[in-house]
Amino acid sequence: MVKNIKGKIEVFIIMGSDSDLGVMLESAQVLEEFGVSYEMTVASAHRSPDLVHKHIVNLKNKGVKVIIAGAGGSAHLAGVCASLTTLPVIGIPVKAKTLDGLDSLLSTVQMPPGIPVATVGINASKNAGLLAVQILATSDKILEKKLVEYKKKMADEVYKKAEKLKKVGYKKYLTSN
Amino acid sequence: MVKNIKGKIEVFIIMGSDSDLGVMLESAQVLEEFGVSYEMTVASAHRSPDLVHKHIVNLKNKGVKVIIAGAGGSAHLAGVCASLTTLPVIGIPVKAKTLDGLDSLLSTVQMPPGIPVATVGINASKNAGLLAVQILATSDKILEKKLVEYKKKMADEVYKKAEKLKKVGYKKYLTSN
Amino acid sequence: MVKNIKGKIEVFIIMGSDSDLGVMLESAQVLEEFGVSYEMTVASAHRSPDLVHKHIVNLKNKGVKVIIAGAGGSAHLAGVCASLTTLPVIGIPVKAKTLDGLDSLLSTVQMPPGIPVATVGINASKNAGLLAVQILATSDKILEKKLVEYKKKMADEVYKKAEKLKKVGYKKYLTSN
Amino acid sequence: MVKNIKGKIEVFIIMGSDSDLGVMLESAQVLEEFGVSYEMTVASAHRSPDLVHKHIVNLKNKGVKVIIAGAGGSAHLAGVCASLTTLPVIGIPVKAKTLDGLDSLLSTVQMPPGIPVATVGINASKNAGLLAVQILATSDKILEKKLVEYKKKMADEVYKKAEKLKKVGYKKYLTSN
Amino acid sequence: MVKNIKGKIEVFIIMGSDSDLGVMLESAQVLEEFGVSYEMTVASAHRSPDLVHKHIVNLKNKGVKVIIAGAGGSAHLAGVCASLTTLPVIGIPVKAKTLDGLDSLLSTVQMPPGIPVATVGINASKNAGLLAVQILATSDKILEKKLVEYKKKMADEVYKKAEKLKKVGYKKYLTSN
Amino acid sequence: MVKNIKGKIEVFIIMGSDSDLGVMLESAQVLEEFGVSYEMTVASAHRSPDLVHKHIVNLKNKGVKVIIAGAGGSAHLAGVCASLTTLPVIGIPVKAKTLDGLDSLLSTVQMPPGIPVATVGINASKNAGLLAVQILATSDKILEKKLVEYKKKMADEVYKKAEKLKKVGYKKYLTSN
Amino acid sequence: MVKNIKGKIEVFIIMGSDSDLGVMLESAQVLEEFGVSYEMTVASAHRSPDLVHKHIVNLKNKGVKVIIAGAGGSAHLAGVCASLTTLPVIGIPVKAKTLDGLDSLLSTVQMPPGIPVATVGINASKNAGLLAVQILATSDKILEKKLVEYKKKMADEVYKKAEKLKKVGYKKYLTSN
Amino acid sequence: MVKNIKGKIEVFIIMGSDSDLGVMLESAQVLEEFGVSYEMTVASAHRSPDLVHKHIVNLKNKGVKVIIAGAGGSAHLAGVCASLTTLPVIGIPVKAKTLDGLDSLLSTVQMPPGIPVATVGINASKNAGLLAVQILATSDKILEKKLVEYKKKMADEVYKKAEKLKKVGYKKYLTSN
Repeated sequence: MVKNIKGKIEVFIIMGSDSDLGVMLESAQVLEEFGVSYEMTVASAHRSPDLVHKHIVNLKNKGVKVIIAGAGGSAHLAGVCASLTTLPVIGIPVKAKTLDGLDSLLSTVQMPPGIPVATVGINASKNAGLLAVQILATSDKILEKKLVEYKKKMADEVYKKAEKLKKVGYKKYLTSN
Repeated sequence: MVKNIKGKIEVFIIMGSDSDLGVMLESAQVLEEFGVSYEMTVASAHRSPDLVHKHIVNLKNKGVKVIIAGAGGSAHLAGVCASLTTLPVIGIPVKAKTLDGLDSLLSTVQMPPGIPVATVGINASKNAGLLAVQILATSDKILEKKLVEYKKKMADEVYKKAEKLKKVGYKKYLTSN
Repeated sequence: MVKNIKGKIEVFIIMGSDSDLGVMLESAQVLEEFGVSYEMTVASAHRSPDLVHKHIVNLKNKGVKVIIAGAGGSAHLAGVCASLTTLPVIGIPVKAKTLDGLDSLLSTVQMPPGIPVATVGINASKNAGLLAVQILATSDKILEKKLVEYKKKMADEVYKKAEKLKKVGYKKYLTSN
Repeated sequence: MVKNIKGKIEVFIIMGSDSDLGVMLESAQVLEEFGVSYEMTVASAHRSPDLVHKHIVNLKNKGVKVIIAGAGGSAHLAGVCASLTTLPVIGIPVKAKTLDGLDSLLSTVQMPPGIPVATVGINASKNAGLLAVQILATSDKILEKKLVEYKKKMADEVYKKAEKLKKVGYKKYLTSN
Repeated sequence: MVKNIKGKIEVFIIMGSDSDLGVMLESAQVLEEFGVSYEMTVASAHRSPDLVHKHIVNLKNKGVKVIIAGAGGSAHLAGVCASLTTLPVIGIPVKAKTLDGLDSLLSTVQMPPGIPVATVGINASKNAGLLAVQILATSDKILEKKLVEYKKKMADEVYKKAEKLKKVGYKKYLTSN
Repeated sequence: MVKNIKGKIEVFIIMGSDSDLGVMLESAQVLEEFGVSYEMTVASAHRSPDLVHKHIVNLKNKGVKVIIAGAGGSAHLAGVCASLTTLPVIGIPVKAKTLDGLDSLLSTVQMPPGIPVATVGINASKNAGLLAVQILATSDKILEKKLVEYKKKMADEVYKKAEKLKKVGYKKYLTSN
Repeated sequence: MVKNIKGKIEVFIIMGSDSDLGVMLESAQVLEEFGVSYEMTVASAHRSPDLVHKHIVNLKNKGVKVIIAGAGGSAHLAGVCASLTTLPVIGIPVKAKTLDGLDSLLSTVQMPPGIPVATVGINASKNAGLLAVQILATSDKILEKKLVEYKKKMADEVYKKAEKLKKVGYKKYLTSN
Repeated sequence: MVKNIKGKIEVFIIMGSDSDLGVMLESAQVLEEFGVSYEMTVASAHRSPDLVHKHIVNLKNKGVKVIIAGAGGSAHLAGVCASLTTLPVIGIPVKAKTLDGLDSLLSTVQMPPGIPVATVGINASKNAGLLAVQILATSDKILEKKLVEYKKKMADEVYKKAEKLKKVGYKKYLTSN
């Protein structure tokens, strides 16, 4: 689960339950795509608070610069991490069984003055990974260049889709996907 | 801030910010009314996590049997307390500056399996105090008796209001209050 | 449906409709796991108010110390129980056919001053069972010890999952579940 | 508080708290305007359940044909009334201190199959009174005629306002009110 | 679609779209069960306003005493009916494709002063039928008696379910349904 | 209340209650600013349905091309207008006494297939006026030119504010307003 | 994807993602039904802002009179279009993966003063097409006539359904569809 | 409005309207407290899109590493910034006149895959400033040290408040503030 470059971990991904893994892995995939080292673990703010504590207070020693934390319902994990470190914490509100993610979103984003959580959209794990890369890129020219290319590639894909839609029409477009 | 009976503290009241005090004191007043000993403090789950931790893990030694925790916004305090103890934790969602308490309510009540928080209504601090007394009364006949009397008194007050309304009519009733 | 230890019932589980049974049984299972005696029944606050009344006013004679009440939609059952007794009432907002449990939650939790309901999350029946055990444990050292062990076991399970995730990586983890 | 015509009470108005009186009196005023007899009282479903019970089961003997019940928060009063009688129950969700009446509305309207509550808008006490009159008018030609006149009068008032607006323009209209 | 008793129609059921029929038929079934005559039709407030108008202004001549109107989304049908008659109008907020019925509920219930709609729960068509019967029963002793029996039967069913649950336990209960 | 240019009315402004006038006049002011003729009136969809009907079916004869309709709560007025004409109808959800405009918004915007309402934001009366001008401008080069100038002027004002903020700093900026 | 009449494009349909195509094509189908020329494309406000810019600033040269823009989540596309042109912009809030379209609706409709978006219901793409036709019809007598016929046809379909329901009864009606 | 350290600007603060300034200045004050250079400006995504564009595409040349963008209602500004750069963008949902900030929050946070916005709580401008400092501190040891001190100071303040509450009791505490 750990991917090392020069022996350091740059991003720490933590989730409240292994049932969040299907969402959280998209963060990991983005980091892999950008060649960013990360460690990913499960540690519940509620069922294993000491484990969370132990992880977070040791992250700076590992060289970690950004935390990505995802949880659902009374989603306290990102806030708990933020309370234990000065590293930027990205919070992913994971949609739980009821209320369509609204509880997770409000629990994650409405933090009190002094302890911010950089919240992305409900289940927006891919964006959490990208935001981590953007933060790292503020002091890493190579990553910044990769981000510019990534952005260009995203735009190019839109252009291609627009071209295809123009060429084949909406009926064929829908059936060809 | 501490009221002792036989040197023990039965209820621990904790709030995330002193701006919650105007709401939280109603819990204390109920406990005073029932002669229940309590300690009340401020300790933010986010700005002072170690202080919360230190408090909660020592409560059983003090004889505490119930915790009342109130916070607003991303209201994690009750959940954090519940993660650190097996004592019953009563959560008060305190209305914050926006969203009318909905964020506080969902953050407090939607706890994951294994770590319950006994949530009362938004700003319902008085009910939190009463619930604490009800819990203590499950093993305290004197408290139980007081609760029965309290309940009767509440009913009596409704009867008196109904009598007054019948007697003076709604116009006079409204102007006489 | 009744499980007796020394001839007494400690927890009374009541649900508004037998369609809630799939949710409510988790409370019963937790109580069984902790060896707590309970009685479980169906009695609608709306369709059979007299039955609810008859049950609740007799609970103290049976030795009951905690009530767990679950209902959906205009979820009045927990509140009705709380109006008829001084025992602590745990309310489970059961998700009904529309609105994803929001109506059930607000109906259960927003009780007026004087009559608290200890509300757990939407469909959080397992937590209701645990909260009942926590309340009983305030005067039962054996239960308290079991709760401490239960909490430790929950943490251990998180540790094991974290170990497995570290060892096999997220791809294998997902496919192995 | 009681207005008799031929010694009978046709409408019973009940509210959960005297703090609802400022809203509930509009129902009474409409009934007075239509010459409909009514009785109005305070009786909390939660703080005085026996009082509610005693009232509702005796209403048919008094000749009551319609109940108007108003409450806020976990607004159970209308539902409790409906559970105890086959008379039509009109529910007024009274806006409480938080959530802008949403909790009151959902608690009142989302009743289970078998026990309807005829819910009007949040704080819409005047409409509750009118609905009671409409129900009585289904078997009272004089009331029906009054309703037709009332409706015509409402339309006439709109015509007059439209005339005034046309005549004086919106600037003068606003300052002349 | 019309069921006549002595040549009169007592209840008029109207829905905004035939896609609401699966919900609306429960009203009709209740009326059939109580032997109440009714007419049921489709007429959109938006796509066929003249048809709605024609229907509603003629209802009194047919002897109709209660209207049941169901619609979804911007659910204006019940309000439009109420604007055209002094008969009591029961509104059923039918759940549409998005927002889980919240739009339908608010559109139906939040009527302005002067024009009430007796709103039941989302998709609560059965309750709409029962409410219509309750209204008719205010001047029909036979219907009133049937309602008392119906209510008793509902309570009996709850008693039977409670008995069964007590007898077979929750495991068998769930598998036997 | 009528402003004529060449004897024709281009925009018809209608509101459900004169209590909406404080909001609705902003539409009128925008039309005046653009020199667009309009008529403004009060006519409730619920209290005066015939008046609304009479107005709307005659609009084409007056040369009206766009309708602006504003109402609150169960805001049916825009939808009722749209049901009676093929002219484009702009709906303004006017914030009513509770729910902060959410009921008005959903009632206005969630129209069924076949009958669109061009909805603007809650209380966004100015934008309704601008949208009417944009619609008229699709066949009026002079109006289109005015819109381009208006847009440029709005941008210029932002530039000026930005300049001022740069020049005086945020402290002086706040006190100088 | 482009349908030309006399070499001009009257309506420009733009969507934020090709995953919106299943919804957006209903706008196109309505335009085809009315013989209105249109161009349809994909261009994300976020992933390809320059493409959006390029499209919108050139639309007047192509003769475009109305824009239809659909997007989900933080649905900025319609607002971005509206910021770049004085043409009327119709916004379709497309339901995204969570929150049932509420985020899309609020992002689309709550525009600031000066920049209106004519918002239709969630996923109401057909209505967006019709609104575009209504706008064009304000200066096109042939289109206006077609709209009147279309409206009549919609009403006729309701009449037929009502006839069928009357004739076959609700049981056969449901099974015959 | 510009504060330079070594001639570079590290943080760019942008708001959609000068009415947001009262909220946005808290970000600036935090940056001043940490000695971080910043530029603050007003530029509406809707009323002055070209100004926003011009600003954002030039930020890297100025040395800017983080953007803070605040807006209300259909709050597109942060998303528009994020679409134009690879710098991390912190979004502040500013509470607008209705809906208590819910529209601003959802518009800001629910961004599509590929374009993250690091969203803080409603009106949480102070936290936006702190998050910007945290991001800069990932490559600035001095800032990191200041953050650790800042965090310690926040905790100390909580300790002091707890001491005072313990010492003076809640009655004096409330009156002494």
